[in-house]
Amino acid sequence: MVVRVGILGATGAVGQRFIQLLDDHPTFELAALTASEESAGKTYRDAAKWRVNAPIPDDIAGMEVGPTKPEAVPDDVDLLFSSLPSGVATEVEPEFLHEGYVVSSNSSNDRMAPDVPLTIPEINPGHLDLIEVQRDERGWDGALVKNPNCSTITMVPTLAALDDAFDLESVRVSTLQAVSGAGYSGVTSMEIIDNAIPHIGGEENKMETESRKLLGEFDGADVELHGMEVAASCNRIPTIDGHLENVFAETAEEATVEDAAEAMRSYEGVDLHSAPEQLIQVFEDPVRPQPRLDRDRGDGMQISAGGIQTTGTGLKYNCLAHNTIRGAAGASLLNGELLVEEGWV
Amino acid sequence: MVVRVGILGATGAVGQRFIQLLDDHPTFELAALTASEESAGKTYRDAAKWRVNAPIPDDIAGMEVGPTKPEAVPDDVDLLFSSLPSGVATEVEPEFLHEGYVVSSNSSNDRMAPDVPLTIPEINPGHLDLIEVQRDERGWDGALVKNPNCSTITMVPTLAALDDAFDLESVRVSTLQAVSGAGYSGVTSMEIIDNAIPHIGGEENKMETESRKLLGEFDGADVELHGMEVAASCNRIPTIDGHLENVFAETAEEATVEDAAEAMRSYEGVDLHSAPEQLIQVFEDPVRPQPRLDRDRGDGMQISAGGIQTTGTGLKYNCLAHNTIRGAAGASLLNGELLVEEGWV
Amino acid sequence: MVVRVGILGATGAVGQRFIQLLDDHPTFELAALTASEESAGKTYRDAAKWRVNAPIPDDIAGMEVGPTKPEAVPDDVDLLFSSLPSGVATEVEPEFLHEGYVVSSNSSNDRMAPDVPLTIPEINPGHLDLIEVQRDERGWDGALVKNPNCSTITMVPTLAALDDAFDLESVRVSTLQAVSGAGYSGVTSMEIIDNAIPHIGGEENKMETESRKLLGEFDGADVELHGMEVAASCNRIPTIDGHLENVFAETAEEATVEDAAEAMRSYEGVDLHSAPEQLIQVFEDPVRPQPRLDRDRGDGMQISAGGIQTTGTGLKYNCLAHNTIRGAAGASLLNGELLVEEGWV
Amino acid sequence: MVVRVGILGATGAVGQRFIQLLDDHPTFELAALTASEESAGKTYRDAAKWRVNAPIPDDIAGMEVGPTKPEAVPDDVDLLFSSLPSGVATEVEPEFLHEGYVVSSNSSNDRMAPDVPLTIPEINPGHLDLIEVQRDERGWDGALVKNPNCSTITMVPTLAALDDAFDLESVRVSTLQAVSGAGYSGVTSMEIIDNAIPHIGGEENKMETESRKLLGEFDGADVELHGMEVAASCNRIPTIDGHLENVFAETAEEATVEDAAEAMRSYEGVDLHSAPEQLIQVFEDPVRPQPRLDRDRGDGMQISAGGIQTTGTGLKYNCLAHNTIRGAAGASLLNGELLVEEGWV
Repeated sequence: MVVRVGILGATGAVGQRFIQLLDDHPTFELAALTASEESAGKTYRDAAKWRVNAPIPDDIAGMEVGPTKPEAVPDDVDLLFSSLPSGVATEVEPEFLHEGYVVSSNSSNDRMAPDVPLTIPEINPGHLDLIEVQRDERGWDGALVKNPNCSTITMVPTLAALDDAFDLESVRVSTLQAVSGAGYSGVTSMEIIDNAIPHIGGEENKMETESRKLLGEFDGADVELHGMEVAASCNRIPTIDGHLENVFAETAEEATVEDAAEAMRSYEGVDLHSAPEQLIQVFEDPVRPQPRLDRDRGDGMQISAGGIQTTGTGLKYNCLAHNTIRGAAGASLLNGELLVEEGWV
Repeated sequence: MVVRVGILGATGAVGQRFIQLLDDHPTFELAALTASEESAGKTYRDAAKWRVNAPIPDDIAGMEVGPTKPEAVPDDVDLLFSSLPSGVATEVEPEFLHEGYVVSSNSSNDRMAPDVPLTIPEINPGHLDLIEVQRDERGWDGALVKNPNCSTITMVPTLAALDDAFDLESVRVSTLQAVSGAGYSGVTSMEIIDNAIPHIGGEENKMETESRKLLGEFDGADVELHGMEVAASCNRIPTIDGHLENVFAETAEEATVEDAAEAMRSYEGVDLHSAPEQLIQVFEDPVRPQPRLDRDRGDGMQISAGGIQTTGTGLKYNCLAHNTIRGAAGASLLNGELLVEEGWV
Repeated sequence: MVVRVGILGATGAVGQRFIQLLDDHPTFELAALTASEESAGKTYRDAAKWRVNAPIPDDIAGMEVGPTKPEAVPDDVDLLFSSLPSGVATEVEPEFLHEGYVVSSNSSNDRMAPDVPLTIPEINPGHLDLIEVQRDERGWDGALVKNPNCSTITMVPTLAALDDAFDLESVRVSTLQAVSGAGYSGVTSMEIIDNAIPHIGGEENKMETESRKLLGEFDGADVELHGMEVAASCNRIPTIDGHLENVFAETAEEATVEDAAEAMRSYEGVDLHSAPEQLIQVFEDPVRPQPRLDRDRGDGMQISAGGIQTTGTGLKYNCLAHNTIRGAAGASLLNGELLVEEGWV
Repeated sequence: MVVRVGILGATGAVGQRFIQLLDDHPTFELAALTASEESAGKTYRDAAKWRVNAPIPDDIAGMEVGPTKPEAVPDDVDLLFSSLPSGVATEVEPEFLHEGYVVSSNSSNDRMAPDVPLTIPEINPGHLDLIEVQRDERGWDGALVKNPNCSTITMVPTLAALDDAFDLESVRVSTLQAVSGAGYSGVTSMEIIDNAIPHIGGEENKMETESRKLLGEFDGADVELHGMEVAASCNRIPTIDGHLENVFAETAEEATVEDAAEAMRSYEGVDLHSAPEQLIQVFEDPVRPQPRLDRDRGDGMQISAGGIQTTGTGLKYNCLAHNTIRGAAGASLLNGELLVEEGWV
């Protein structure tokens, strides 16, 4: 089976990752690229300031980039990946949905909307059924699915494993985030060399709310947010890719280090093309995971964890994921594969 | 008044900071430098691989470095600063104490010994009286005073302010620590460029125990550790100087953001030469403090804090200090000034 | 004597350095700050995104920033420092000159204009007399003086020393330039972490032409460019401040390593407030100078050199300067001091 | 055909790269690993501090590491790759050669020995015949082949292309070298963060002599060094992998930019498994090549060039290669493939 796909916002940092990940994909065939007005009409080679450390795939480099409008996308495209700036996405995604497109979006708008599934295929695939609710309420034939923020997605698989086994009560998390998470020009070199920045606008709130929706119960109509308390402190550090996070977790059931490690290690994955064989890799060496050494595991789709220890009141541990693959383009791609698998495309 | 001082372990990274800080000191006159056997007999210029970004003071460059033995230190030296590796310090510091020297030490050995004062002059100057206990038990005429680890000292002033005002119950802290904290060769460039390391051997335990001793009650005989729970996760990041820390604190009394800020801002300092005018600078801009921009405040002796917010269960905020000044050489120096002020020298 | 001065373009990276350098200046009193329209009317504290690692001087923080127009500058201001973007400076500097202001400018426009002195006080102070030619030709009462580009100024003092002693014939130079040279937002973190960029637009041409004007002969009417060939390759690397350069020089007279070092060491400085006591510091240790260790020598105004060796055809050596102090704000300031000394203000 | 190979010095940074590159090699089967005495007897997993950003291949992780002695290597091993420290290699390589082994070595000892071929397969494969001379003079049955230093190999392909087309007369080169070139612990983080080091011991001499041997004429008995003058300045910068170099070249025949680019682009490669399809990639965009973006081209075996311009007296351009692949392990591996192809194994 071949599914024809398009990328909305194809020239940015996440858009470039989409192109890299779609190269040689067994099912998805890239058939449409859109970007802002000033890029429209150019070849992709000319429109994108290509920054991935591998050449642009030959068949993509010469493709024409269209404007981000439904009429610029061929009718036989079945699935769209969106990495538009959230301000633009708020305006434009509904236009595609009203035209009946299925959109797997990395943009942050609407993630917490009650009728929009926010999903990680390994964690809450059942939330996809919110699409029915969404169609009723919004009056469109399309389907909008969101993946969480890169900092959220890094910790949620480990939280899901602990919640299943021990019932989570509260989470405090401190992040060490790579500069690529802010986009190509998001962090200047003068801001970050020999430095760290203890605040990322909006990021703490995303972690605190999205994680509770992802672990929430879906009863066919609504997702009830998980009851745990989540408090996050988000920091930018001088790394290119890979978010590292320190988690302090309190659970209702007492967890030993070995039980916690086993809960993570045995957390089940999904059988989709872009999913890693094992969802969570657990290191015994406390100096791991590290961004540069471990971000590429599972082709950038595996979550790494380590340093699990008990504290006076619960557990502490570290986790890591590749923020522009598992945390952005790869997340949307995997949701796209799930949408196909579940028959929504 | 002139106090003649010496430095044990004068050639290392902290030793070099001592020399820089003692240059032009109004009371302390540097009269002895010691180092390992292979440096003994050389001039300081030849013995030290000088890395401070200012030239070696002229009068020090030509001084002869002696071995780290009591007989190599002139009798008229009144006060010794120690930045020896802790393994060496364990052996050597007692030799100096039995000879009657007063030693203000940055080395990590004996910090938690019941009869050794672990002090920050602004926080617990009264603990100095443990020296009497120490002399009784150890049978020496000297006096040994320790300052805490650099990661501990960064957060403890803010904890002391919160504890005074609201009674601390638990603390979780995540650190983003500079490479200089590991000494000149402690972290290789291949380990840390485009990377972060989520573990520093022994560091978490130091933060978890030293902080409770610093805030503990001294009844004239013993220091009772503070009852708060402390859990720490320590990370190394690619910065040269300045430890940044994310703190999550639970207090018995409810604290608003403004009350917490005011408690920190108004926490009283001390009137010693190397102490900053204001102990804790509180930023309203949430992107501050940052290591490169704020580590040098108060000549590297001021603590910075910012990003204070309430969480569901308490407070979160960030703090920062210069790890080799306030967190090491400056800490010992300030303890030395307190020892003089209080008449122990 | 007090000279009242103003800064055109006071909020940018170089403007901030001006403010830092003018704090406590014995002669210059800061009396006017200008910036773009959207900053006009704000206090300096609000208008500038302050990035210097020391607080804004108290008396400056509350000053009002005006628009960059002659009518916004008080009449009793005697001397203006300009760090405007060159596109803006091209338009605006002449307006001030026609109003009779003396302008010491760091902006790159007009540096190679035949009637504009391009000066480093220690190298070619006599070129200031071009001001007479300039006034005749431009019909203004003001005076425009430029300092060279930061990469040029780093090497020219060493070239001047070699030219005086051995007659320079050709120079090839490779630069390792800090990100601050591109301004606050000039280099993104994604461009430069774990990377280097082998091209800086326009920079090579500046080095190749400005150096020949600085070492050129002034006959009272024209500056004849020095006849040496200069070829430059300019690279950006992940350092904050301090340009390091590798120079390969061919001379007419044969130069030994010791003679070359002596020519540099003994090159005469000037007796101005901001000038370093010794213009060029020569290291014997071949691993020096290094940006982080040596950029602050002479309060950022000294040139460092090292690694002098003979090659088959000439000499090679390295040199370094602080690019935003000696290479920008400090350069204009020193030219301002020379203008006062020589009676032009 | 299967060739059984071994690695001498398998646990170091270059040894780890050998293991990565030999994984899935179509001809070479890894059958022996040696290291220092303290590693001998351990599994590779335990002996190596593995730092490559991919897991240790499963079949290698459990292999036992032997001491670096001929008796520890199975008799049916046909070819050895050596990445020993040069001091050790000087002692140990001859022992293996006397036992008849063919050794393709990255160690720097003996590179300039008159009877040892220093080869890059694409540049001077014919120099391999020096093995006959070597066997006569040394009295061994083995064969010792060396590859050049990482900084040399980065520029020599471009020099070879220019020399073939225009006859090289002199070369000045400035390098921006990655920290991995110094080995795992070669450069500390305190030395290099926010810094650059303008000297690498011995490196300049290697570039100045090895390049002339590589481009030298072999007459069946001796290699006559190429007559060009070479002067090098070597710098360490804060990048992990990838050496960038600025070259200034004078040629006997005049070269235009386009002719020089064409000479590089069309320089012929070799048909060996690890060789890139095109030896030299030439960029037209002057900001390329860049270490992080271009070091992995051709699986780390391609040379990149760019920024070609004419100067008053010749050409200038930039070149780049992956220093631990094309510049070290990959270089030895490719020489090994050539040795097999040419029948020496």
